[in-house]
Amino acid sequence: MKLSIVLSTQPTQFQAATLSGELEPSIAQIAAFGYQGVELAIRNPDLVNIDALASVVRKYNLVVPAIGTGQAWNDERISFTDPDPAIRRAAIERIESHIPVAARFNAVIIIGLIRGMLLPGVNEKQAMTILCEGIQECCRAAQPFGVRLALEPINRYECSLINTLSQGLSLVKDVAEENFGLLLDTFHMNIEEPGIEASIQSCGDRLFHFHVADSNRWYPGAGHLDFSSILGSLQKIGYEGFVSGEFLPMPDPITAASRNIEYLKALLRSNS
Amino acid sequence: MKLSIVLSTQPTQFQAATLSGELEPSIAQIAAFGYQGVELAIRNPDLVNIDALASVVRKYNLVVPAIGTGQAWNDERISFTDPDPAIRRAAIERIESHIPVAARFNAVIIIGLIRGMLLPGVNEKQAMTILCEGIQECCRAAQPFGVRLALEPINRYECSLINTLSQGLSLVKDVAEENFGLLLDTFHMNIEEPGIEASIQSCGDRLFHFHVADSNRWYPGAGHLDFSSILGSLQKIGYEGFVSGEFLPMPDPITAASRNIEYLKALLRSNS
Repeated sequence: MKLSIVLSTQPTQFQAATLSGELEPSIAQIAAFGYQGVELAIRNPDLVNIDALASVVRKYNLVVPAIGTGQAWNDERISFTDPDPAIRRAAIERIESHIPVAARFNAVIIIGLIRGMLLPGVNEKQAMTILCEGIQECCRAAQPFGVRLALEPINRYECSLINTLSQGLSLVKDVAEENFGLLLDTFHMNIEEPGIEASIQSCGDRLFHFHVADSNRWYPGAGHLDFSSILGSLQKIGYEGFVSGEFLPMPDPITAASRNIEYLKALLRSNS
Repeated sequence: MKLSIVLSTQPTQFQAATLSGELEPSIAQIAAFGYQGVELAIRNPDLVNIDALASVVRKYNLVVPAIGTGQAWNDERISFTDPDPAIRRAAIERIESHIPVAARFNAVIIIGLIRGMLLPGVNEKQAMTILCEGIQECCRAAQPFGVRLALEPINRYECSLINTLSQGLSLVKDVAEENFGLLLDTFHMNIEEPGIEASIQSCGDRLFHFHVADSNRWYPGAGHLDFSSILGSLQKIGYEGFVSGEFLPMPDPITAASRNIEYLKALLRSNS
């Protein structure tokens, strides 16, 4: 199992982007801590110098397991399920614009908050239908590039559409594309899943990416989740992707990033 | 340890009021399930026929361990920390109006959402100061009646003021009144406390009331909290109050109320 951590390529309003700020010093720090990957939160690929980014990532011998896209919702309110078809189209085009970047890094594209919320004028059934169609379109555009998309169930307080693994798996079934799966996040799972380990096992090979934060959204080890058991469940389903830290930068970003990797590495050693 | 469940005396917007509707049939049902207490959510005592309520509660041989007051925030936006002094005064007067009712039932008065949120014009330090003063005033008014007040730490998504036990204990220290303590709720604790059992133990004899819901806010047993360990911690600190069910009415109110008491009774039997 490989470890990565979320890094925002731009300033953002999202409070759980663990690290942000100047790109190269952050990436150097991530590599120095021993992480093998850096998950990039990118609001809009057009605003990022991808060549420069790839060069820095390569310089520090890191990979990019996933690209987060939720800033398009947080900062621009673009979503797949907006009542306005023009905004829905913008969401599809935004995700499609990530495809060449994701292909370059061999990264999963995350469908987090960009899926949208239940807004007036669209009921849940309609939202699920247009979301399904939008994701199908993106998946088909991504297939020639070998790129996969992963939707993240998000807790009830942050999102009104797809909170649980079960709702996520239902969408996976409806989308019915091989390159569409899920991203599970332990912080959201702690609130939404009846049993965290059972949900990981139900997700099986549709688990494309994995986020860790402890029960209080601090780094793993700062709360009461049983990460030994959680990592064990990932091993049981044969998960070979990254375990990516997305947590509050508390007590400060550097301490959080450092404690996360120390804690998880110790658990992985004792689990193996 | 005695078991109770929340009942709203009036229709409300608060979604975790487990039971609501016609009063006597609900109270009869609660008694039939074997609960020893019914926790009453009362927005405004002036709107409730307290004699009739007391008569129904007595008829079914129940006690009222606590009175919830959060509907004053949910439905009227009255709070202790509003920037408008007139609204803060209304909150103090509202809590004071609960005192004779609480005295009659020997119930704790809950300070939940009525403490308020951080609103523009009042910073956190100011909010904590005016909250402390307001609670002191209410505590002093309650002392001649032998009535106690309990503030409930509430998770970050529902309240911006006092999310954790540690913040609650700090207020208890500042208020410095013998009849002021805390109400802990397992659903909020699951999100906010680094360790649920450790927080119960830190609260000690300042724990005046206790709410149970599972990690997903369904009835205990429907999520992944370890209620055997939680009840054990309550026993360790010598808690003799009620364990009161406040959870979503899922899959329906009757099933939830029934499963809660079956589950907790079985745990109490095997713990004893």
